[in-house]
Amino acid sequence: MNEKKVLRVGILGFGTVGQGTWKHLVENEKAWERILGVQLIPTRASVRSLSKKRAFAIDPTCITTDSLSIVEDPDIDIVCELIGGIEEAKKLTLRAFSMGKSVITANKALICDHGDELFKAAETAGVRYAFEASVAGGIPIIKVLRESLVANEFPLIYGIMNGTSNYILTRMENEGATFDDVLGDARELGYVEADEALDLDGVDAAHKAVILGYLAHGMWIDLKDTTVEGIRRISNEDLAAARDLNCKIKLIGVIRRSFEQNYVSVGVYPALVPINEIIAQTDGVFNGISLTGTVVGTVVLTGRGAGQDPTAGSVISDIVDVVKGMQGSALPPKLLHVTPDECKPAPSQEISGCFYLRLSVDDRPGKLAKVAENLAVHGISLATVSQTPDEKSESASIILTTHQTNEHSIGLAIDSLEQLDGVKEKPVLFRMFDPNCYKEE
Amino acid sequence: MNEKKVLRVGILGFGTVGQGTWKHLVENEKAWERILGVQLIPTRASVRSLSKKRAFAIDPTCITTDSLSIVEDPDIDIVCELIGGIEEAKKLTLRAFSMGKSVITANKALICDHGDELFKAAETAGVRYAFEASVAGGIPIIKVLRESLVANEFPLIYGIMNGTSNYILTRMENEGATFDDVLGDARELGYVEADEALDLDGVDAAHKAVILGYLAHGMWIDLKDTTVEGIRRISNEDLAAARDLNCKIKLIGVIRRSFEQNYVSVGVYPALVPINEIIAQTDGVFNGISLTGTVVGTVVLTGRGAGQDPTAGSVISDIVDVVKGMQGSALPPKLLHVTPDECKPAPSQEISGCFYLRLSVDDRPGKLAKVAENLAVHGISLATVSQTPDEKSESASIILTTHQTNEHSIGLAIDSLEQLDGVKEKPVLFRMFDPNCYKEE
Repeated sequence: MNEKKVLRVGILGFGTVGQGTWKHLVENEKAWERILGVQLIPTRASVRSLSKKRAFAIDPTCITTDSLSIVEDPDIDIVCELIGGIEEAKKLTLRAFSMGKSVITANKALICDHGDELFKAAETAGVRYAFEASVAGGIPIIKVLRESLVANEFPLIYGIMNGTSNYILTRMENEGATFDDVLGDARELGYVEADEALDLDGVDAAHKAVILGYLAHGMWIDLKDTTVEGIRRISNEDLAAARDLNCKIKLIGVIRRSFEQNYVSVGVYPALVPINEIIAQTDGVFNGISLTGTVVGTVVLTGRGAGQDPTAGSVISDIVDVVKGMQGSALPPKLLHVTPDECKPAPSQEISGCFYLRLSVDDRPGKLAKVAENLAVHGISLATVSQTPDEKSESASIILTTHQTNEHSIGLAIDSLEQLDGVKEKPVLFRMFDPNCYKEE
Repeated sequence: MNEKKVLRVGILGFGTVGQGTWKHLVENEKAWERILGVQLIPTRASVRSLSKKRAFAIDPTCITTDSLSIVEDPDIDIVCELIGGIEEAKKLTLRAFSMGKSVITANKALICDHGDELFKAAETAGVRYAFEASVAGGIPIIKVLRESLVANEFPLIYGIMNGTSNYILTRMENEGATFDDVLGDARELGYVEADEALDLDGVDAAHKAVILGYLAHGMWIDLKDTTVEGIRRISNEDLAAARDLNCKIKLIGVIRRSFEQNYVSVGVYPALVPINEIIAQTDGVFNGISLTGTVVGTVVLTGRGAGQDPTAGSVISDIVDVVKGMQGSALPPKLLHVTPDECKPAPSQEISGCFYLRLSVDDRPGKLAKVAENLAVHGISLATVSQTPDEKSESASIILTTHQTNEHSIGLAIDSLEQLDGVKEKPVLFRMFDPNCYKEE
């Protein structure tokens, strides 16, 4: 059991994800201390070129071109391997293990090629090789598959595992743009890996599918035993034909297991997916993975499959797990208990929203005006109005939606509407819930 | 550190979830031994009535009406509290803690009412109180929120947290059936809790929303500080009006956090959710939860929110976590490494599927017949065919979809089609991916 009060993190590779990891470690240092009881300090990072300008600047004395010196630094407790590539990354990882250090990685290619050797080496050394960030960026697929759904076997796992190809297909689909045009944009946006085959020919998704196949079935499938096809042959004509068949074409990774014959198959290919599947509706740079387990049925996870923050978030969740392990504790990280100074229940005046109202009223002239007036008194303005007479009952339904107001005002308005002459019962009130209004609060 | 080679599980409450937990513990006993290095043996269960007939029968000597005797049995290492209710469940849980035993629970009402006291008692006793099954059944929302997304704060969490009310709304929506009619069916199917307010008045969803609010924000919100409304006032007229507004009415739990003012609000209410949200499309008994984090962006999880197997699966994932903790190990459960005897890569003849083909051919009579004939030779029959002339190039596109065949046959067919006179390039081949074909393999 490690009882250090400070743990130092070394980051190999200071690109997008490396910088994001450093940034979030620093920004939330108080949170790590509260939930882990230790300070987590990003201490050193390695780069290929010292002169390159970086969006996120750190003290130059923390930076080196010598990754091995970080791995071997006795002050560094935890290593994040974010340099990518195979040979150097593998050597550094094995060296860290032999020094008794756990390694966190986002390197799907390395795991796909040498996972068997690396996991065994970590086990022998009694350290962890943690890789949540290697598959589907911010989507916690590794932990869900390995821990949460541990009671299951998986006849089928499938989904969108590469955001760049999905971005291209989505724009072709939505705008009728050609593959080449969208590819040009994607390159400009920095979405396409330097080795374009990774994104366009399905290779990156195949690495991820192989890792999921191993987690689900305990078996490393060789890439040469898999079908790996990319998106280059998909035309706008195909997208239209797929629509006619009530499908969308998506580049999916598929891991199938037949229990009768004990076969596993792994493949990555463009496929026509029925339009009502969540995976078919997972658009743009988003990833989505559908897991069908023998116990749980089908669980689907969607989210950002790449990008600085989501991927760094996965790296950090692995760091937290590794620290818990070093502390000899299998408890989840402690919950923060906030004080009323830090946070309190919102008063109803502060809970904003738009509302849907249905009133049953006597079908006589002027009712709608009275209702609108009543709402205006409470500072509530209307977005839409419709009135339908109900011939049988000599009453009418008035359906209203409001612009932004708050729970307090609408509560007062409802109470006074109920008292209004000709209103037959307590008005029906539902909330108009647009999640995009609240996400950026 | 506990080095026992056998761990005995006591199950308080032998209803749907209790029986499911027992069943899966027994059915997969080999798996638990392989991944945990210990035997996990369900040993005793408590019931309210010994005479009641149960779908899943166990040795009568394992059954008692005295739950406390299980908690206090020195042979029982781990306790699953699945009796529900508040007072007795709380006493039994605290007694288990005081005996140094971890407790796994699905009891959202108890956690909502007394979570603060119970979590503190577990911490003091150095044991775990694990509750994955308490929110959203088989969806691993607790672990994802607490561990995977640990780097985030959450401006918004919302979703469908009660399957019964969602089932009723979905049938009203899809069939135009009335609330009362569908409620009758739901009662017959055993979907509705004995205390109907839990499902119909939003109380069950509110318990879950309060738990998520605590996990996300470290704060127990009192139910009296929350808006809790159910589905009884939703009419078919409202569902139609919502459709006109491009929305669906769903009973959602909403946890909002304003960082500017440091307010948290928790509510459960029917809301008009924009139709393109995954949550709006989460129908029937399914649950779905959308988490918006400051680092990860939006992650959505959907799956079965109740039912014997999914909920038992969550109980078992908690048991596995608890056992890892007892072993003083924070490593995830070991992966099964299968031997080629147990499982191997599927040969292409065994990978079945339907396919989409696009051929560019000379626009001359008889081409389609030749193509169809060629496919028939390989045992492939056609599902749909369409041919579009391209006037500019004197060629035509033939788009075909096939009935079920396999990767081997379609590969041979493609090779021979490419050689066919008048076929201009290698045919484009995509898979028709219908996940429902593979889920039950």
